[in-house]
Amino acid sequence: MYPQSVVLYEVGPRDGLQNEPARLLVDDKVRLVSALAAAGVRRIELGSFVRPDWIPQLAETDLVAQRAPKLPGVRYSALVPNRTGLERAIAAGLKEVAVFMSATEAHNRKNTNKSVAQSLQEFGEIVPAARKAGLTVRAYLSCVWGCPYEGAVDLQRALRISQQLRDLGCGELSLGDTIGIGNPLQTRRILESFLKEFSREQIALHLHDTHGTALANCLVGLEMGITTFDTSIGGTGGCPYAPGAAGNLATEDLASMCADMGIETGIDLKKLIEAGALAQALIGHKLTGRRLQAALGRRTPGEARPAGST
Amino acid sequence: MYPQSVVLYEVGPRDGLQNEPARLLVDDKVRLVSALAAAGVRRIELGSFVRPDWIPQLAETDLVAQRAPKLPGVRYSALVPNRTGLERAIAAGLKEVAVFMSATEAHNRKNTNKSVAQSLQEFGEIVPAARKAGLTVRAYLSCVWGCPYEGAVDLQRALRISQQLRDLGCGELSLGDTIGIGNPLQTRRILESFLKEFSREQIALHLHDTHGTALANCLVGLEMGITTFDTSIGGTGGCPYAPGAAGNLATEDLASMCADMGIETGIDLKKLIEAGALAQALIGHKLTGRRLQAALGRRTPGEARPAGST
Repeated sequence: MYPQSVVLYEVGPRDGLQNEPARLLVDDKVRLVSALAAAGVRRIELGSFVRPDWIPQLAETDLVAQRAPKLPGVRYSALVPNRTGLERAIAAGLKEVAVFMSATEAHNRKNTNKSVAQSLQEFGEIVPAARKAGLTVRAYLSCVWGCPYEGAVDLQRALRISQQLRDLGCGELSLGDTIGIGNPLQTRRILESFLKEFSREQIALHLHDTHGTALANCLVGLEMGITTFDTSIGGTGGCPYAPGAAGNLATEDLASMCADMGIETGIDLKKLIEAGALAQALIGHKLTGRRLQAALGRRTPGEARPAGST
Repeated sequence: MYPQSVVLYEVGPRDGLQNEPARLLVDDKVRLVSALAAAGVRRIELGSFVRPDWIPQLAETDLVAQRAPKLPGVRYSALVPNRTGLERAIAAGLKEVAVFMSATEAHNRKNTNKSVAQSLQEFGEIVPAARKAGLTVRAYLSCVWGCPYEGAVDLQRALRISQQLRDLGCGELSLGDTIGIGNPLQTRRILESFLKEFSREQIALHLHDTHGTALANCLVGLEMGITTFDTSIGGTGGCPYAPGAAGNLATEDLASMCADMGIETGIDLKKLIEAGALAQALIGHKLTGRRLQAALGRRTPGEARPAGST
């Protein structure tokens, strides 16, 4: 009833770090990426080729991409907003890039400074160019579960945008609960709609954990045969244009749940916890991932008196 | 496919507070209980009639029970470990009590200072006595998903203990993932076994959130028709004899998910958040409930530059 194996697509070095006040050195980002790869994470998003003055945390993505360890079976990616970004990604040696836009006008404009039509037009140039250069392209569609500006989202419109993204050459579509307010019933309805038009392999789930429902939503995804899930080490993340959004679903939380359910991820949980501890040390504050904090805070049974707990 | 309505059984004033270093005044406990009742929580566990030197945080449960607001439709309960505890509960005017034991010898001994057989023997005296006095009795069975001392748990033994508890007169059985390590597949298997012997109405789920899976496990419970879930305001809790155990599933997290899924709980989420904020203020540190922190930390959209988040 669940997939035998799933892929965790790590967005921590990009979606995680871009929403943290700390600015990591290139060396430290490479250390974090190396730790993730060593733990068995096979897809890692290294950063974003947006203008450095937009997101100082993601400046120098070029250097991170050049210096990330080249390991068999590990695929790196990065966000590209335009042709300049694509050229930087190609120059940095990436074999995959990701374009990103929102299912709603208001969020797309706040987050990318473009209308939905303008984003699609831009992608109409860069996605075919990326494909021609031999890269695979993933597309993010944000705010599918809800928009911080518009509220409810028109699912039919989200579907139409997604079809256009696929027709442009995006091989994978990452559906985002950008503000992390989704519930399992809604996730089921969204996936039912999308799976009429897309294969399970074309869809990834990108869930934030603002209301604590990310793993429950993942469970619905697993039940419906989805096999790619975006996660962020330690649960880092958020979004400046998604008020109240907490971090992404923590990589350790999903990796741990999958391991316990007998679903393969290829990840060594012990090493992943080490990567999480490194992320926490580099970022400089306690991260929110439950599994990470359980591992870091594990206590030894004390010798106190009986307690009558349940 | 999900129940139309569910009951959240609030354990914060007992399971939550007993694992917090802060010692609340009786007045403050009554304020918290009043805030929970005002939010529409209909079952609230007020404390535990164990020896005060075992759990100083729960001393004076008598006074809390006497002073908690008597509202139509609100049922209070408290843990009773023995006949003395039962007599105190009756004297305090409670109409429901809860007995508690573990599915494993080691945890039962650490947590209650008794063997499993001794606990059942004790309950053989007090459960019928409570019923004779007109009280309803709930039974907690801890460590059904796993034991911090014994590891894996014998599900058949857990079932046999549960049947004995029912035969003694316990009308409701609260199955505990005391260390919060359960996964949804396991939850399904446990419930499949229990639902062969018990009706859905006899079973409650008592989940801790150590690995972040509590809501996902609840979702399985909802799918299988369970309608009573133990939760703790703000996600307070843990267990001194369950190393690494984090708090209980947060009341707001489940109440919010149910509301979003159209499942009735009778709870006013806004007032529940107020109760959570009160709990946090009284306890004196940031609580772990996701929904509470999202509500307390909600930011207004800023006017920064476009960010390219997903």
